[in-house]
Amino acid sequence: MNHLQSLQKWLADSNYDVAYISNPTDILYFTGFHSDPEERVLALFAFPEAEPFLFTPQLEVEASKKAGWQQDVYGYLDHEDPFQIIAEHINERTKKTNHWAIEKADLPYARYEAVQQKFPNAQFTGDASEFLDHLKLIKSPAEIKLMKEAGQQADYAFKLGFEALSTKLTEQQVVAEIEYGLMKQGVMHTSFDTIVQSGENAANPHGVPEKKSIKANSLALFDLGTVNQGYMSDASRTVAFGEPTAKQKEIYNVCLQAQLSAMDAAKPGITAEELDAVARKVITDAGYGEYFIHRLGHGIGTSTHEFPSIMQGNSMELQPGMCFSIEPGIYIPGVAGVRIEDCLYLTENGNEPFTHTTKELQIIPVK
Amino acid sequence: MNHLQSLQKWLADSNYDVAYISNPTDILYFTGFHSDPEERVLALFAFPEAEPFLFTPQLEVEASKKAGWQQDVYGYLDHEDPFQIIAEHINERTKKTNHWAIEKADLPYARYEAVQQKFPNAQFTGDASEFLDHLKLIKSPAEIKLMKEAGQQADYAFKLGFEALSTKLTEQQVVAEIEYGLMKQGVMHTSFDTIVQSGENAANPHGVPEKKSIKANSLALFDLGTVNQGYMSDASRTVAFGEPTAKQKEIYNVCLQAQLSAMDAAKPGITAEELDAVARKVITDAGYGEYFIHRLGHGIGTSTHEFPSIMQGNSMELQPGMCFSIEPGIYIPGVAGVRIEDCLYLTENGNEPFTHTTKELQIIPVK
Repeated sequence: MNHLQSLQKWLADSNYDVAYISNPTDILYFTGFHSDPEERVLALFAFPEAEPFLFTPQLEVEASKKAGWQQDVYGYLDHEDPFQIIAEHINERTKKTNHWAIEKADLPYARYEAVQQKFPNAQFTGDASEFLDHLKLIKSPAEIKLMKEAGQQADYAFKLGFEALSTKLTEQQVVAEIEYGLMKQGVMHTSFDTIVQSGENAANPHGVPEKKSIKANSLALFDLGTVNQGYMSDASRTVAFGEPTAKQKEIYNVCLQAQLSAMDAAKPGITAEELDAVARKVITDAGYGEYFIHRLGHGIGTSTHEFPSIMQGNSMELQPGMCFSIEPGIYIPGVAGVRIEDCLYLTENGNEPFTHTTKELQIIPVK
Repeated sequence: MNHLQSLQKWLADSNYDVAYISNPTDILYFTGFHSDPEERVLALFAFPEAEPFLFTPQLEVEASKKAGWQQDVYGYLDHEDPFQIIAEHINERTKKTNHWAIEKADLPYARYEAVQQKFPNAQFTGDASEFLDHLKLIKSPAEIKLMKEAGQQADYAFKLGFEALSTKLTEQQVVAEIEYGLMKQGVMHTSFDTIVQSGENAANPHGVPEKKSIKANSLALFDLGTVNQGYMSDASRTVAFGEPTAKQKEIYNVCLQAQLSAMDAAKPGITAEELDAVARKVITDAGYGEYFIHRLGHGIGTSTHEFPSIMQGNSMELQPGMCFSIEPGIYIPGVAGVRIEDCLYLTENGNEPFTHTTKELQIIPVK
């Protein structure tokens, strides 16, 4: 059953009449067509039995067909009322339009109002966002293949970043070297703003690369990812730029042990919160628990933050095909910040990481 | 009156009790603090009389103060119910919570539901999106200064792009050279994906840079912009890479005359649709009207598409301080695509463009 068929089955099973998919990432997931419509309307409408249709700005109609969408697509011009046209096409397909499923986490209030106006009896009880959170949990082999390629791109980005480290460059300029190297290979989109933080800046888990020289004899933290045909990579490495202090080595090794322990434990049957606890115990036992201030990981796929969240309070049992990060971090203000992160997918018996850059502490000579 | 005071006055004048500002760009506009909260809640609440407050994930509380926000800010942890905390702080401030203004174009349905649950009598009659569209129309001298700097960055980007043109590079690799050059100068964000299109690809106004060599003896179209402290630039230039044909020169010059005519006519008093018609007449009179298939321009500021829209059907009278693009284009499949675009601000008597890269047809030797 493909993604769209799963959506149609859910509608039938739940007695919903219409689904309105509004998030461009999710439209890509169902149709193979991606576009950022900005303020214009881009939407997919699906039904339990009738044929689905795509609705786009007129200029995008041809592009959606080129991308492989073979069912109906309707366009609209800027001076037309998009929801009038949408309503006509829905009414052509079905007489039952009272029970709607919408992406509650995405659909702006104004669009909900527009639908309500055309369908005064509509009730918005179905949450397609929640359905999608669960549908996306288990990745297919085809999706995992794309994520593996994205992981290879991230490994290449680390190589570029480690080679670029220099006291003559700012953190921002090292980011420039990484993204330039990726773009030269045709990797045009990162999955989030590339992070390079050196020295004290790395101890700020929500910091950004600064216009400040890379610091010699300190730890440098890289957190980066790419987009490969809509699927994301995300990985972190921390390296020593010059000889690390004994304290920095100690923190690094505690973080590494926590990461490796969780990688070992990540297999079907363990729950998300149990996995979080595996890594947290290593760090807490070493006396650094108070400096590990975020969850162990997050799901990844067509976005960098999706289900499952690997955190305390999430009792979801992990299953083959789930994809998520394992990224313990220790941030000690004035001393160092360390984070080590791989994303992986669960197999029947264990897991395979998407990134393979070494995790032994790399010591990069100061230049 | 600063931005926040304007919002409070609007609430008082319209008899709204609470405003919920949810769009991160608009939160920056009112508070000076920018953050991308992803799935977490970031919000500004304002009232006709009571003090406003900012609401952020706990990790962002300090950052918002550092960014200069001096009034109350409240944080929440991942396991807490954000709307419970928000409701408590609203109820501390006011007993009147029935009439809400929300950003209808932004607020996801799920957040509206969460508010409705905490405030069962709330009615969502006010549209803060619409209010902001109008508030943002007139830029202050401080805002215009930031947009001038962003325009200088765009001019520098054109220089980088023209110099990079080579049959040895793909369109994507020319994009890489432009963005690399910008990042080396600390310009870390473009306002949209940089566009470089050569030859036939340029005739597709919704195309993207391809992994395809720059074509000798054809026109190359650049459309690019940067973000400077939250304010955007956006500009287009088309150049000849090698000797242009007579037909290409003719099309270019028609587009240029249309652009220059509209630049001359852009002054207070003219309406948006009249200005669109000025450029359209030049192109139509020359026989290319059917190939100018989009509006003349769009407003620009903290986003690249805001009010005023310079198009047929918009009878808004233009005023000093308004900022928008003038970007006629002629796209003839199989022949060439040309677009020439500057953004500008209206002065008391005319206008000043933000970009100054020459518009005479540049002929760049093939290399």
